[in-house]
Amino acid sequence: MPGMMDTILNLGLNDETAEGLATQSGNARFAYDSYRRFVQMYGDVVFDLKAVAGGDLLEEALEHLKQQRGVVRDMDLEASDLRDLVATFKQIITQQTGRPFPDDPGEQLWGAIEAVFRSWDTRRATDYRRVHDIPDDLGTAVNVVAMVYGNMGDDSGTGVAFTRDPSTGERTVFGEFLPNAQGEDVVAGRRDPEPIRAMADRCPDAYRDFLDVCRTLETHYHDMQDIEFTVERGTLYMLQTRTAKRTAQAAVRVAVEMVDEGLIAEREAVLRVQPAQLDQLLHPTIDPEASIEVLAVGLPASPGAAIGRVVFDADTAERRAANEPVILVRRETSPDDFHGMVAAQAILTQRGGMTSHAAVVARGMGKSCIVGCKELDVSEKDRVFRVDQVRIAEGDWITVDGSTGQVIRGQVPLVDPGLDERFDRLMGWADQFRMLRVRTNADTPHDAERARSFGAEGIGLCRTEHMFFEGDRITAMREMILARDLEGRRRALLKLLPMQRQDFAGLFRAMDGYPVTIRLLDPPLHEFLPHTDEEIQDLATTMDVAPDRLKHTVSMLTEANPMLGHRGCRLGITFPEITEMQVEAIFLAACEVADEGVAVFPEIMVPLVAHVEELRRQERVVRQTAERVFTNTRCRIDYLFGTMIELPRTALTADEIAEVAEFFSFGTNDLTQTTFGLSRDDAGRFLPIYLEQNILPTDPFQSLDQRGVGRLVGVGVGLGRETSPTLKIGICGEHGGDPESIAFCHHLGLNYVSCSPFRVPIARLAAAQAALCDVSTPQLGVGLSGGRDIAANA
Amino acid sequence: MPGMMDTILNLGLNDETAEGLATQSGNARFAYDSYRRFVQMYGDVVFDLKAVAGGDLLEEALEHLKQQRGVVRDMDLEASDLRDLVATFKQIITQQTGRPFPDDPGEQLWGAIEAVFRSWDTRRATDYRRVHDIPDDLGTAVNVVAMVYGNMGDDSGTGVAFTRDPSTGERTVFGEFLPNAQGEDVVAGRRDPEPIRAMADRCPDAYRDFLDVCRTLETHYHDMQDIEFTVERGTLYMLQTRTAKRTAQAAVRVAVEMVDEGLIAEREAVLRVQPAQLDQLLHPTIDPEASIEVLAVGLPASPGAAIGRVVFDADTAERRAANEPVILVRRETSPDDFHGMVAAQAILTQRGGMTSHAAVVARGMGKSCIVGCKELDVSEKDRVFRVDQVRIAEGDWITVDGSTGQVIRGQVPLVDPGLDERFDRLMGWADQFRMLRVRTNADTPHDAERARSFGAEGIGLCRTEHMFFEGDRITAMREMILARDLEGRRRALLKLLPMQRQDFAGLFRAMDGYPVTIRLLDPPLHEFLPHTDEEIQDLATTMDVAPDRLKHTVSMLTEANPMLGHRGCRLGITFPEITEMQVEAIFLAACEVADEGVAVFPEIMVPLVAHVEELRRQERVVRQTAERVFTNTRCRIDYLFGTMIELPRTALTADEIAEVAEFFSFGTNDLTQTTFGLSRDDAGRFLPIYLEQNILPTDPFQSLDQRGVGRLVGVGVGLGRETSPTLKIGICGEHGGDPESIAFCHHLGLNYVSCSPFRVPIARLAAAQAALCDVSTPQLGVGLSGGRDIAANA
Repeated sequence: MPGMMDTILNLGLNDETAEGLATQSGNARFAYDSYRRFVQMYGDVVFDLKAVAGGDLLEEALEHLKQQRGVVRDMDLEASDLRDLVATFKQIITQQTGRPFPDDPGEQLWGAIEAVFRSWDTRRATDYRRVHDIPDDLGTAVNVVAMVYGNMGDDSGTGVAFTRDPSTGERTVFGEFLPNAQGEDVVAGRRDPEPIRAMADRCPDAYRDFLDVCRTLETHYHDMQDIEFTVERGTLYMLQTRTAKRTAQAAVRVAVEMVDEGLIAEREAVLRVQPAQLDQLLHPTIDPEASIEVLAVGLPASPGAAIGRVVFDADTAERRAANEPVILVRRETSPDDFHGMVAAQAILTQRGGMTSHAAVVARGMGKSCIVGCKELDVSEKDRVFRVDQVRIAEGDWITVDGSTGQVIRGQVPLVDPGLDERFDRLMGWADQFRMLRVRTNADTPHDAERARSFGAEGIGLCRTEHMFFEGDRITAMREMILARDLEGRRRALLKLLPMQRQDFAGLFRAMDGYPVTIRLLDPPLHEFLPHTDEEIQDLATTMDVAPDRLKHTVSMLTEANPMLGHRGCRLGITFPEITEMQVEAIFLAACEVADEGVAVFPEIMVPLVAHVEELRRQERVVRQTAERVFTNTRCRIDYLFGTMIELPRTALTADEIAEVAEFFSFGTNDLTQTTFGLSRDDAGRFLPIYLEQNILPTDPFQSLDQRGVGRLVGVGVGLGRETSPTLKIGICGEHGGDPESIAFCHHLGLNYVSCSPFRVPIARLAAAQAALCDVSTPQLGVGLSGGRDIAANA
Repeated sequence: MPGMMDTILNLGLNDETAEGLATQSGNARFAYDSYRRFVQMYGDVVFDLKAVAGGDLLEEALEHLKQQRGVVRDMDLEASDLRDLVATFKQIITQQTGRPFPDDPGEQLWGAIEAVFRSWDTRRATDYRRVHDIPDDLGTAVNVVAMVYGNMGDDSGTGVAFTRDPSTGERTVFGEFLPNAQGEDVVAGRRDPEPIRAMADRCPDAYRDFLDVCRTLETHYHDMQDIEFTVERGTLYMLQTRTAKRTAQAAVRVAVEMVDEGLIAEREAVLRVQPAQLDQLLHPTIDPEASIEVLAVGLPASPGAAIGRVVFDADTAERRAANEPVILVRRETSPDDFHGMVAAQAILTQRGGMTSHAAVVARGMGKSCIVGCKELDVSEKDRVFRVDQVRIAEGDWITVDGSTGQVIRGQVPLVDPGLDERFDRLMGWADQFRMLRVRTNADTPHDAERARSFGAEGIGLCRTEHMFFEGDRITAMREMILARDLEGRRRALLKLLPMQRQDFAGLFRAMDGYPVTIRLLDPPLHEFLPHTDEEIQDLATTMDVAPDRLKHTVSMLTEANPMLGHRGCRLGITFPEITEMQVEAIFLAACEVADEGVAVFPEIMVPLVAHVEELRRQERVVRQTAERVFTNTRCRIDYLFGTMIELPRTALTADEIAEVAEFFSFGTNDLTQTTFGLSRDDAGRFLPIYLEQNILPTDPFQSLDQRGVGRLVGVGVGLGRETSPTLKIGICGEHGGDPESIAFCHHLGLNYVSCSPFRVPIARLAAAQAALCDVSTPQLGVGLSGGRDIAANA
């Protein structure tokens, strides 16, 4: 925690003891340098000298001395110089603070202890606690231990080690040893340490003891340790042990092997792996050995590394991708770019946040993506992007790393990850513990299959609009939009019907036995039309309509705030024929695949409902259309009719909504946008500043804002289940793949989360951890009354 | 209530009684025509014949007979024809329904009574009750009375009268009398009725009785009555009495005079006038005698009639308005049009809803305005608008009526209204009863003074951005936006400082003794910049910057959803120097006017807060700047620091917000937009359909959506007062002038509402009525815990 003093102070030195140490160790320079360092650090920490003096006077004195002596490194100063320097330091401290430097070790000790306790109330610590909700009365602790020295000769030394390999997880001690040295010498890089095994030769007894201690510590802590130790004249002293950081691969291997070793139970193994880490296992990464030229760093929107030739528009991406890998670079993407995004290896944008169009779509496809890379100056017209003096033209190779946000010049070797049998075992255990179902957001059979291979138990969100951007579908869609009357719209919709039917059939087959939630058309119609004069002219020619008429339609459909405009169920209500076509396609497909023996469970979801009456009207259209299909096909499919909860009003009136809806799916992306009054496309100009200045603790599009948006979700769940106690409730925003948000969903008693395919394993693990950490898990009902409580209490 | 049968059925006729009536009255045609009408109406109402037969067979039979006889009017048919027609009718009824027409009066009566009760469960009645929240078990009633006849000779007749003049309210019986006739004859327009006084000569006894009854009814009902009566052979029979509809002028006069007459108490007088009606008293109206050519009808956004020459842009409006009245016609307005709106008599737009920019600004100025007039095809480029074949060019005269939405060709005579002493007395009584304070939304001293003359008790919302559009202020504002760095911004802000200071001083003087709530800069900076290439070029020349740089800035500031973008306190946080300048101007002005002896109470309001931390950061800037001014001027002003609650998250976390804010002001316009996910600028394409199809009961921008947005307001009030029980809470959205919303605010225990100047009297009256209708009013605390209750209950 910042503000806490985590410095280790080597107390107990004064003129007398320093001289003793010099004699005893036979190394006067070492003794006085230790003394010098101690006084310097004590002055900084206990006397707060830098703040009092308004500068680092001790460091200046040291530098001044080195200049006088004509040396560059501290270690080239003589023992006598260092002894004199200590005197100078003490003088400075007395002058500046009015308090003499204590020579008595007991006084030194109490001064240091007080300083630690004082640090609890510094501005930095107070701010940190407020932001992270740490109570002010928690307090801090001080450890006082005797000092040992690793630089007492060749039978002494110091080392750092892991009880297992932190990269691979292999069960073998891994670390470094530096003979005749203190820990600081390792840090300062004065000498190269040796592999830990070297210690076996130099001080075999200590090494044997060390291996014993490693085993003891693992047995005690039931986890892999990161250990610091010192050997003083052949005797091993442990300085510190803590749980070791590790790669995802190592985390999985250590957890599973410790179960096999009987060290931990399966439930503990499940708790040992950080869900977010799993991303590393699912995507290729940049070879850590490679030397790279980083051009710029953007927001790491969708993980994985990718290599390709730069292209600047979707058509070129599609054309060139047939022969070679491409990376689509845009100022920002729009749904028009969808086919290019499908064709590209990765997407890189100059603008946009972590939940901009590019980011969301790329994550949905599990495709590497970097957004908001502001250092880039992208000129789509000139087909070039610039970073400072560097100019990257169309066709140039770049490598991007969506896990770090790095944009790298040229082709960099990648490392292929792989999921192994240990991963599968771990996930199997996770599945036993979790209460939440995990579904996926998928719009294509391909995505659905991939998600299923990752363990998805159905589709929580199929965005039908993505289906309309492919090939000549967009043409039929545009015909529908441009139609002058109902008849014209129906004609165009008839062309779309068989295509949609085919899409749905594919999804149903891929999810055989699992529910498939299909959201009716959601985006404003405007998104399907071209916008530049040139594109409009082209389309007018293709469609054989007057350019002016097309332009007029485009301008009529332009909205000041399209996010809050004519979209979602507002389309289905003003143009019920669109809903009819989609519902007909869904049930024709369902009947078709049911005939093939597929177990099909469609869930029809109405988007952007604000008022229950909207849902009632759409229900009438859906049920009537479904009945018509059933009558015509002589087939009957069980289905659910439900709604997205993505507007505050819907959550606030969820009791009414639940009179009609058979399920709720919280669309927390849009719910966050409206609850915060924050457009994710526009937030780039201030949200980074908010995060940097700690105005917001986290990006609310990354992790659900539990205090605000979360309260609203709680209200919605509570009110909905008041009307309908067994109401099926899920979440299908980006948050469905975020571990903290998943834990929150678990506590609210949701039935499922839905996330992009590559996040499914993360969600499975996070859901299991939430259940394991929840004392109330056996009674799933506990979170259900949350709505009212959350609304009422802070 | 629709679905209720409010028809009066003349029961008891059959072949025998009809013949008797023919003999008795000496008018066979009359007798058989009555019989025919009875059978026809009974068939429709009791046998539901139209629905059963799928068409109006009886009316067809009647038409067929008239064709055969070669007559056009029903009354030209012979008695015998009518008698035969009755037989035909009965035959049709039996054929179609399988039930014979009852000849027995008792049977007729029971059939009719059952039909009324049946009507309770028709689809229409059920839907109506659901939408209007009328319980299904309320039930309906049936009145059965004996029939009297006004067509029994010259000592008979029928009439309709008001106990006072419904136009002026003068205390004199007002109405019409038709001798020897039934009520239907008046309706059918067969003969012209005489003034009610004619009755004094024709049947003086009945007339004397009638005047007595009028007095009795008024005394009984304590209100002006609308009466229907019949005189049968000199005897007066009362058919119906009900409370009379009246103009606003009459309503005020009747209410005040009835108090003077001792008929009602002052509190009853206050309840007698509909607040919304007062609008009529405050604006000129179209002379009801004038003949007019209505070109189109739009949404009546701001009341009052106005005449002027059509202009299509703000600059022309300003130029021409110096010499003659103009009406500004635009597809839609933006803040750039402000000076043109100020100059124009009225504003007319093709697009936008009741709370679009044009509507809000016009209402704020009390200026006539029609928006969303879709029949208009406005071409600003060609300086013309078209409605069907009619073409209105720049300079042509039109008249608009903002109370009805009518756009009228040419100049139409207007009638000037006037507020009289009776109005003042009524408002004085209202002020005694209300608990809510009434403030005004005003941005200029002129508006503030006007509002004060209407009784405003302070300013609830001063939108500082409007101040930046005048004259060369916009230039300084643009310099600020285009500045490359903090220094440049500070330089430009220094130019704005004295202007803002002057604005604030004017407002403080106008509101001497009352609080003035000043909202810090709110709109996205984009709104201050030009958008077309031409305008950008012009500005670049004026400002001596490269057009490309300007264009770049404009494009950088363009947002996908500006409503949810970089605006409100997000500006103040990213550019704290803007907040500093505004706060400095506020306190320099406050100190200046305090020196003059003005009692000044500034309330500084931070817009678009979503998270308490935003408010904390702005508070630091505000308090530090205020202290600096106080130190420099050696003056100290008490002020409050508070926030708008205009985002769902702010209401949901109001407990946290109230730790910092000293007052809340609910900005229910924006709160409605975000809670509903509904942009008021874009809602024009579907909101009218929603209202027409009863999907929404009312326009949520007109009257606060109590079930949804209202719940959120309740939550905010409840949570805010949990933290700070005496928290001052107001509302400053458009709803502050809507009577139903005002009643809701009263029930929630708000301290004040704030509305546009012309709505201040409406708000005063509505607040009084809310208090008078509220049984719990004496204990003001009752509504305060509303937050939690409202959140929890439907």
